[in-house]
Amino acid sequence: MNTFGQALRVTTFGESHGPALGAVVDGCPAGVALSEDDLQPALDRRRPGQSRLVTPRKEADRVRILSGVFEGRTTGTSIALLIENEDADSSKYLDLRDLYRPSHADYTFDAKYGHRDWRGGGRASARETAARVAAGAIAERLLPGVEIVAWVSDVADVGSEVDEAIVTRADVDVNDVRCPDAAAAAQMTARIEAARRDKDSVGGCVRCVIRGVPAGLGDPVFGKLDAALAGAMIGIPAAKGFELGSGFDGTRLRGSEHNDAFVMRDGRVATATNRSGGVQGGISNGEAVTFRVAFKPVATIFRSQPTVTRDGEATEFAARGRHDPCVLPRAVPIVEAMAALVVADALLRQRQIAGF
Amino acid sequence: MNTFGQALRVTTFGESHGPALGAVVDGCPAGVALSEDDLQPALDRRRPGQSRLVTPRKEADRVRILSGVFEGRTTGTSIALLIENEDADSSKYLDLRDLYRPSHADYTFDAKYGHRDWRGGGRASARETAARVAAGAIAERLLPGVEIVAWVSDVADVGSEVDEAIVTRADVDVNDVRCPDAAAAAQMTARIEAARRDKDSVGGCVRCVIRGVPAGLGDPVFGKLDAALAGAMIGIPAAKGFELGSGFDGTRLRGSEHNDAFVMRDGRVATATNRSGGVQGGISNGEAVTFRVAFKPVATIFRSQPTVTRDGEATEFAARGRHDPCVLPRAVPIVEAMAALVVADALLRQRQIAGF
Amino acid sequence: MNTFGQALRVTTFGESHGPALGAVVDGCPAGVALSEDDLQPALDRRRPGQSRLVTPRKEADRVRILSGVFEGRTTGTSIALLIENEDADSSKYLDLRDLYRPSHADYTFDAKYGHRDWRGGGRASARETAARVAAGAIAERLLPGVEIVAWVSDVADVGSEVDEAIVTRADVDVNDVRCPDAAAAAQMTARIEAARRDKDSVGGCVRCVIRGVPAGLGDPVFGKLDAALAGAMIGIPAAKGFELGSGFDGTRLRGSEHNDAFVMRDGRVATATNRSGGVQGGISNGEAVTFRVAFKPVATIFRSQPTVTRDGEATEFAARGRHDPCVLPRAVPIVEAMAALVVADALLRQRQIAGF
Amino acid sequence: MNTFGQALRVTTFGESHGPALGAVVDGCPAGVALSEDDLQPALDRRRPGQSRLVTPRKEADRVRILSGVFEGRTTGTSIALLIENEDADSSKYLDLRDLYRPSHADYTFDAKYGHRDWRGGGRASARETAARVAAGAIAERLLPGVEIVAWVSDVADVGSEVDEAIVTRADVDVNDVRCPDAAAAAQMTARIEAARRDKDSVGGCVRCVIRGVPAGLGDPVFGKLDAALAGAMIGIPAAKGFELGSGFDGTRLRGSEHNDAFVMRDGRVATATNRSGGVQGGISNGEAVTFRVAFKPVATIFRSQPTVTRDGEATEFAARGRHDPCVLPRAVPIVEAMAALVVADALLRQRQIAGF
Repeated sequence: MNTFGQALRVTTFGESHGPALGAVVDGCPAGVALSEDDLQPALDRRRPGQSRLVTPRKEADRVRILSGVFEGRTTGTSIALLIENEDADSSKYLDLRDLYRPSHADYTFDAKYGHRDWRGGGRASARETAARVAAGAIAERLLPGVEIVAWVSDVADVGSEVDEAIVTRADVDVNDVRCPDAAAAAQMTARIEAARRDKDSVGGCVRCVIRGVPAGLGDPVFGKLDAALAGAMIGIPAAKGFELGSGFDGTRLRGSEHNDAFVMRDGRVATATNRSGGVQGGISNGEAVTFRVAFKPVATIFRSQPTVTRDGEATEFAARGRHDPCVLPRAVPIVEAMAALVVADALLRQRQIAGF
Repeated sequence: MNTFGQALRVTTFGESHGPALGAVVDGCPAGVALSEDDLQPALDRRRPGQSRLVTPRKEADRVRILSGVFEGRTTGTSIALLIENEDADSSKYLDLRDLYRPSHADYTFDAKYGHRDWRGGGRASARETAARVAAGAIAERLLPGVEIVAWVSDVADVGSEVDEAIVTRADVDVNDVRCPDAAAAAQMTARIEAARRDKDSVGGCVRCVIRGVPAGLGDPVFGKLDAALAGAMIGIPAAKGFELGSGFDGTRLRGSEHNDAFVMRDGRVATATNRSGGVQGGISNGEAVTFRVAFKPVATIFRSQPTVTRDGEATEFAARGRHDPCVLPRAVPIVEAMAALVVADALLRQRQIAGF
Repeated sequence: MNTFGQALRVTTFGESHGPALGAVVDGCPAGVALSEDDLQPALDRRRPGQSRLVTPRKEADRVRILSGVFEGRTTGTSIALLIENEDADSSKYLDLRDLYRPSHADYTFDAKYGHRDWRGGGRASARETAARVAAGAIAERLLPGVEIVAWVSDVADVGSEVDEAIVTRADVDVNDVRCPDAAAAAQMTARIEAARRDKDSVGGCVRCVIRGVPAGLGDPVFGKLDAALAGAMIGIPAAKGFELGSGFDGTRLRGSEHNDAFVMRDGRVATATNRSGGVQGGISNGEAVTFRVAFKPVATIFRSQPTVTRDGEATEFAARGRHDPCVLPRAVPIVEAMAALVVADALLRQRQIAGF
Repeated sequence: MNTFGQALRVTTFGESHGPALGAVVDGCPAGVALSEDDLQPALDRRRPGQSRLVTPRKEADRVRILSGVFEGRTTGTSIALLIENEDADSSKYLDLRDLYRPSHADYTFDAKYGHRDWRGGGRASARETAARVAAGAIAERLLPGVEIVAWVSDVADVGSEVDEAIVTRADVDVNDVRCPDAAAAAQMTARIEAARRDKDSVGGCVRCVIRGVPAGLGDPVFGKLDAALAGAMIGIPAAKGFELGSGFDGTRLRGSEHNDAFVMRDGRVATATNRSGGVQGGISNGEAVTFRVAFKPVATIFRSQPTVTRDGEATEFAARGRHDPCVLPRAVPIVEAMAALVVADALLRQRQIAGF
């Protein structure tokens, strides 16, 4: 299953140290203005080497559109996206081919397939998300009037305060940690730097708001908008938790405290509060869709850790080379991309099921 | 989208107050011993009226198998399950047809379809989950050696302590609140009863452990086992959060604290701890799969709340009739059913992709 | 795979001699006027016992809508259709459980599943098509302005002449053989009666025209409208051939003879001839879609034929009971139903992919 | 819909004169030996310029594997195939952008999408089949013991006699027309040359036999093996007809003449004849699967033909440049590739549904 989506279907391919990775986007309506320049900014936000907080791997991550666009507009046929791997020196991974890095996918790939590309994590590498980000940028082209903004809301024990009603991507990108709360960002940076000094890593959360989603997207039973978002987000490498609107904290409220009263606002049905997170019964209600995603601390650390080899021998492993002590800042555009894919897919499906 | 799963596909149908609801289960291998008696116990655990904690609606919820089983074994063709609605008096909902109950799906259905079955929530009713529970019981038949046990871990501010390695469904069913920690269960019951007295409702969490999942289930990119579980769980009515293994709390740990060291145990690769929750890189690693699902407080309360009518007039709404102050105990078999569907689907897909 | 279609998905279930058969239709837009009375006429045309030419099995084939319709209109959620089996005396099949009827699916079911419902063919019975016909009648409701008319064009060596531009279902139903060419119909009837007298059976062809299909339906590569029709038609029991437009005969023409010149007609692009059969490059061109389906002679005959038992012993088999000597007249509504499902599916998909 | 298959899913992309075309093959089991050298021979058989009978367009059609294969074996993840377009001079098509070539997809693409890549047919070009052929070669790797052989059985009015039990691809490739009946091949060549001299084109049929298909592949209702083959074949550009086994001719037989008696052969259940074409009730019966596909005469001819412009003005069109007068020889590997995809898909699905 390397395909995501029902109406807007994204099929990705590629390994960290193979010749290339990419995606085929199928189901995109015809006539949408699209060029490589529309995709590159999203990839630039995701790619490594942007700041001293993240991995120094050098990848230009230039995306090429191979099909499905003609004279600057989509044709309605499949759009192939290709990103060549440039900095793919796999020799440094040679000593990893026969051991299982803790909390990585090395063992599970072997258990599943009996055979794996061990170079830099192969298909399990977070590098695979470059293809998702490129596809997500296409999805955003289908969502005029929809604003998707994600940011690092938590790093380790440091939280933040951000006004979801107005925050922009420009606000988010103002610092390297991608937290628009400047005071929190400074503390988060300190946590990340401390982890780096300790040859360790930190985790945290990304919060995302989607403003301008029209009411009526998502299906009531198995195609719920929030369920699709949950699956999309937990499918991002290192994600361990998802909550919509009030989430886990909301479980401590009573119904009378939690319910969102309906009111009229600007001539339309709205809610006075938004503990629902913009989705009710699996369908968008016109309020901002808000959710938070938990990311575990990066598994790759420079400390020595006990593990076993493929042959079941006890051994030790300490990472070398280039690795983030914190995945959060680079997760921001990935969260946005997956959110865009989910909402665009729901939008296209709604074109089909809507009143006849 | 009323279909769930890729290899084991469950298509459900039916409204709360229509003539019947049910499911068609497709992709079930041939030769599996199956009868209605295998399905009824799960339905009995889900159905209303089991205790004074939950809704007194009287439904026998008898499930009939209409196809796909012959001489006590599955034939490999589609299995249709039918549950007739018996206690479907919709007259009491007549006054609801023109207003939007707060934090229900009334408004979003209208926004989506322009037309809805307003009788008892129609397709958005939690009654729809009866079909999922019946289908889940079929999925369990495909999982010999796998034990799926869910329980109420939290109600409002009351948590619990349960040994995930040994807890059984019998332990869970020992009390009405379905929490195998007796002291916690007593407190939870008090919270629920207090909410009922206050014409209010409470939320909470269900925790689930799946023991015996073989290593290798789930796909690395978009068909991740944990992502599928997340989508399945957030697709349950009233679910607002999902976390696997260490979840949100794990984001506060450092990598050196969070990583699960590989060790040899009983001659196989195992992990010394299980913060990963049994899934690494989207694929099961042979450890217990553990997750927690957050459920908001029940939206239906007997207090008067402000809302609007379909015509946009301000009005008040207070529920009447039969309604749970707490959805948690009945969510337990639903969580188990959806978990079974996810794992069985992954198991069947693994039969296809595994080494040739 | 008991599901047909991408946007309009029909999942069928049921065996010939089980308690019931039916279908779940998913993806039908909301707001479509629909009642059981819209479905029954199609079922009545398909059901046995309509004339002395076809099987005398007595089945009322009453269809019930269990979900997805409220106050006379579709809700946009899954529509369940149920047809109870009434005349399901399977005792007469007891002697068939251990032998393989020639050119039936008995052996292949055993080879596939190792287990089969041998009562009246079980899932392989043409009775299963009742569910398709009911679903097809829903599809027709999505196709105002589209006229689908099929008829028996050939029986054994007898062909016919019918004006595809104007033929109606009423014309077709004017005789039992469902051939609107009266002279041919008389000869066909003679062929069928002769076969019956000889305890034998005959084959033939059904031709179908779909008028009013808007240009632009079907996808260019794998979702071609003609390919979907081909798959749908060959999926009907006993179908062995499919040809669109000029079909096999057209292979003897030269390009200059076969090409359909474009002309303007009534202010729109049209073709002077229609050897393409209304589809070019997999996409409808606005002309009538025309095709022909070949059906082999009925496998069930009253003559004794050599075969083998499940244990590989040579034996003889001669059918008893009620069986058509000719499947053609009853295939007519099935061809129409499958055609309606294909075109409606393409129409809904077009709503999604069309210019944005 | 640019994806084919359920278990083995092939998603293709690319236009005739874009930068590249290709496919992503998903669902291929892990551990299958595979290299580019396994794919190239099939592409070489399909590519233009092989003989004086077919188009002289020069394309090396070198296929690259970009992912999913490591150390010479498939990894179980998505396999991306890329074929660069080399000889993509689209300038000669400039005069076609505003008119509709007769019996091409020019008009229907405009009707569907409102926008099309007019260079050489764009996505509708038969060049797109190169991606299918490459994917089909992967499918063949999953079918050890299965032999798929197609050949040109008819050109215009010239038929042929070939022993389906023993014919090989080497026999087929012995002449340019790809008909292993030498006498017929000579006549076919004469027909093609005559058409070329007349600035015209011819049609014909491809016959295909698949030997060694195990009994039990295909699903009984909507996933029938023959229906899948029909859809796959009619999805090939210019295909207008499909027949399995006895096909259209078989409709003239009586049941007693048409039925295939079961016998024991080599210790297994077999049929004395094979009018069923190897499929009964949609499921393979272990006999050779045999079918025939009709291809219309090539639409592109060098004679002047009347047509209309996009603006609805009457005009004339005569092709220039490089074009086949007969598509048949190059259709042979395409038919084989699509057949391989269908059978491999059924094989993988059978791994999932087979007795548990």
